[in-house]
Amino acid sequence: MASKALATRLGDLAEAVGAELRGDANVLIEGVGTLQQAGPGQLSFLSNPSYRRYLKTTQASAVILSEEDAAACPVPSLISSNPYLTYADAAARLFPAKSFQPGVDPTAVVGESSQIDASAWIGPCSVIGEGVRVGADVFIGPGCVVEDGCDIGADSRLVARVTLCRDTRLGRRCLIHPGAVLGADGFGLANDQGRWVKVPQLGRVRLGDDVEIGANTTIDRGALEDTVLDDGVKLDNLIQIAHNVEIGKHTAMAGCSGVAGSTKIGSHCTVGGQTGLAGHLTIGDNVHFSGATLVTRSFSQAGYYSGNLPAMENGAWRRLIARLRHLEQMAKDLKSLKKTVKTLTGGPLK
Amino acid sequence: MASKALATRLGDLAEAVGAELRGDANVLIEGVGTLQQAGPGQLSFLSNPSYRRYLKTTQASAVILSEEDAAACPVPSLISSNPYLTYADAAARLFPAKSFQPGVDPTAVVGESSQIDASAWIGPCSVIGEGVRVGADVFIGPGCVVEDGCDIGADSRLVARVTLCRDTRLGRRCLIHPGAVLGADGFGLANDQGRWVKVPQLGRVRLGDDVEIGANTTIDRGALEDTVLDDGVKLDNLIQIAHNVEIGKHTAMAGCSGVAGSTKIGSHCTVGGQTGLAGHLTIGDNVHFSGATLVTRSFSQAGYYSGNLPAMENGAWRRLIARLRHLEQMAKDLKSLKKTVKTLTGGPLK
Amino acid sequence: MASKALATRLGDLAEAVGAELRGDANVLIEGVGTLQQAGPGQLSFLSNPSYRRYLKTTQASAVILSEEDAAACPVPSLISSNPYLTYADAAARLFPAKSFQPGVDPTAVVGESSQIDASAWIGPCSVIGEGVRVGADVFIGPGCVVEDGCDIGADSRLVARVTLCRDTRLGRRCLIHPGAVLGADGFGLANDQGRWVKVPQLGRVRLGDDVEIGANTTIDRGALEDTVLDDGVKLDNLIQIAHNVEIGKHTAMAGCSGVAGSTKIGSHCTVGGQTGLAGHLTIGDNVHFSGATLVTRSFSQAGYYSGNLPAMENGAWRRLIARLRHLEQMAKDLKSLKKTVKTLTGGPLK
Repeated sequence: MASKALATRLGDLAEAVGAELRGDANVLIEGVGTLQQAGPGQLSFLSNPSYRRYLKTTQASAVILSEEDAAACPVPSLISSNPYLTYADAAARLFPAKSFQPGVDPTAVVGESSQIDASAWIGPCSVIGEGVRVGADVFIGPGCVVEDGCDIGADSRLVARVTLCRDTRLGRRCLIHPGAVLGADGFGLANDQGRWVKVPQLGRVRLGDDVEIGANTTIDRGALEDTVLDDGVKLDNLIQIAHNVEIGKHTAMAGCSGVAGSTKIGSHCTVGGQTGLAGHLTIGDNVHFSGATLVTRSFSQAGYYSGNLPAMENGAWRRLIARLRHLEQMAKDLKSLKKTVKTLTGGPLK
Repeated sequence: MASKALATRLGDLAEAVGAELRGDANVLIEGVGTLQQAGPGQLSFLSNPSYRRYLKTTQASAVILSEEDAAACPVPSLISSNPYLTYADAAARLFPAKSFQPGVDPTAVVGESSQIDASAWIGPCSVIGEGVRVGADVFIGPGCVVEDGCDIGADSRLVARVTLCRDTRLGRRCLIHPGAVLGADGFGLANDQGRWVKVPQLGRVRLGDDVEIGANTTIDRGALEDTVLDDGVKLDNLIQIAHNVEIGKHTAMAGCSGVAGSTKIGSHCTVGGQTGLAGHLTIGDNVHFSGATLVTRSFSQAGYYSGNLPAMENGAWRRLIARLRHLEQMAKDLKSLKKTVKTLTGGPLK
Repeated sequence: MASKALATRLGDLAEAVGAELRGDANVLIEGVGTLQQAGPGQLSFLSNPSYRRYLKTTQASAVILSEEDAAACPVPSLISSNPYLTYADAAARLFPAKSFQPGVDPTAVVGESSQIDASAWIGPCSVIGEGVRVGADVFIGPGCVVEDGCDIGADSRLVARVTLCRDTRLGRRCLIHPGAVLGADGFGLANDQGRWVKVPQLGRVRLGDDVEIGANTTIDRGALEDTVLDDGVKLDNLIQIAHNVEIGKHTAMAGCSGVAGSTKIGSHCTVGGQTGLAGHLTIGDNVHFSGATLVTRSFSQAGYYSGNLPAMENGAWRRLIARLRHLEQMAKDLKSLKKTVKTLTGGPLK
């Protein structure tokens, strides 16, 4: 824990986050911590029931928790019907985003025809092309590349070393982590008697408001129309989004997952890590895929879908794979057994 | 769609791409679009049969399609035996790559002993080491790092923020997308009583002509000999190619796939997304792996190989996994049943 | 092979690496190569038994091998109980890391309050924030971003285009390859009636000594406590390490693998490529996962675990998947058959 909180009275914090205070309003909160690790002056929270066992002995000065857990709490508490959400709110107040001075670092390179809002910051060694529009209070960290024609909505933040290829559009309050690449060419190839010929990628990448993109994630520009991530979409690190994918509002995807070209994903979906979606699928709203699942067909129905083989001891796994190789034969043996036994009994099986 | 086409008469376009024109040669083409979305002045194409249903109502001004579909086309058309390839050609003519002024941006840093062709461009905040050779008409975009001893063939393009580690060799017309890293150390470790000792990685990365490398893809340098991608190889985003891998001509790999050390892949292969190949394998020519397949042995025979478990409804998946845990027992039960029934019947099963 | 070795007498090399010399001590070693490719003046090694067949005809001037293989070696040899380790040592001596001049490149940007050791190098277009400490003999290559409050231990090396987000801590002799991102925000989101709310990520990334991080690998900062990689951990390329993961000493992970939040991995483990570990697991010491395995539960016992479905011919795979869809029915059929046959025989099955 390296960060230092804005020291705040617990009563003031309760009021700010709209939680009911139980206990001393004058406790001073100067940091946050887990139930196990927090010490005096630190605020903690209880959300995941498997951590309930740490509540009794916590050294935190206060805990955010549900009404249900309040009685067991040995220290002052903030009562919330969604403790994790209330914690998010409290932490954001205790650790406000660092403010920055507007301007353009002298080592940055900005195209003459670009419009940089006077309240924005362009960091050292960043390169902004021509015809770019950078909105109010935008922060572009060091080492970013923003190609010609991009448009970055107000309050967005490119942390560092982000690439936006030509004509990429970001809504307001987008947050793009280091190494992310938005708008590189989609993987469009036509085959000419065994030789691959590049198909020009002429669409764009468009992000709605409040979109967050993880480190080293890649989102390809569309081939003809645009690749679109709607408001509130959250992507973790090292995710690949191919050309012309569309992702609906408030859908979240965990790291190392990939979506092939032209697949449409609905709103309020969640996609586990290392999950892959084939191309040209349509996924409905409120669909949830567990991690390491391969999605090869459309799922329109809200629900929870899976498809992986969990790890097991190596010997058991070897035997399983060997059996699977003979599953066809097992099915045939079973069929002929059924026939034979039916003849023997002269009637149906039990 | 943000790009604007070079306005072209349909007749002139037909001639340029070698397609037969049906209808008015004077139609002016000023853009491209899908059958569903294209409007007046835009050219479309029909290649994937599942889009045939959109042909009748298209608002495009012209469509590239096969002889077979020509009769059903309500607008002027260009007839081609490979409409997608003809479209790629037409789009490349309608949207010619932006030309650039040669030179070295004043914020770039170039080693004194490097030879930069007078027709090449070195972009802002790019860093070129010593002993580098940059060929004619090469474009090195902003924020690239090209270490000592690299050699970049004519007409190649490093879009932005590309890293070429020392001694990497690129052929002609290579296209490297942002964030790609070519020539980082391979993962070579010797074990010294539980402690890992680094094995120096002394080979290089060598690319043939017309190789395309996707965003944030990594290709490791060889341990002793080189890692080699032959002419026309196309890699999508977020792919990992380990040391001493060799990939044959015109093989294409989709995103998030990985190839472990010393594996050789033949020519004209395709590898689906998220597919992994173990190390030290030999894959023949014209081998095709579907997505999310794990390749643990060599396949010399041309053909199509798969190996994944597709997503299903979570309850069904739970039952399947539970059954698989008992597959060994099922096989044993089946065997003893066969024995018993054979004894009962005194002969073979039906 | 582009690198040139420091020419060394074989006898001197034997002494330096502590191996027994068999043959002419005056052979001059000027390079290294595989048994198949090495020529005069080059040193090779035999470690993997599958390469033993190349020993007899090698053109290398000397070979590092085990006592067991010594008799079959046609050229001078260095005898070692761990030939690969001895080769690693020899190669490091033949190809010493390039020395560098200390200083700060004039195009680098360094915060005034940062302390850069006089023996360190800050490369062109690198950006160092405020309050950073850079230790002795540290090399920071071109295009790196080191945010405020980072601490980089002596002899560490950031090759190029590395990002260290605020407060990241590196031990001594760490090696970070291009494109790696350490300390980006973890994927912490609280759900507010369908809308995702960001949970501030307040922990850090801490690396021990001798840690190596591959190209484009991402390691997220902790949510509350730190994400920790202990001494000697080695990560390959394109790996995702989520917030609050802890990895024990000398554990190595191959490319494209991912570890979800709060999972603890023990010491001396190995993780194959494309393997995924779910969150909140505890993995013991000396646990080994093969490639493309999905780990969904804790494994405390040392051992070897697997869980993938290897590639097979596409037709066979289609039949297997179809059979798996009916495995539930097969199990039921088998059960009713057993019942029926038991009734027929009046006793147990054979």
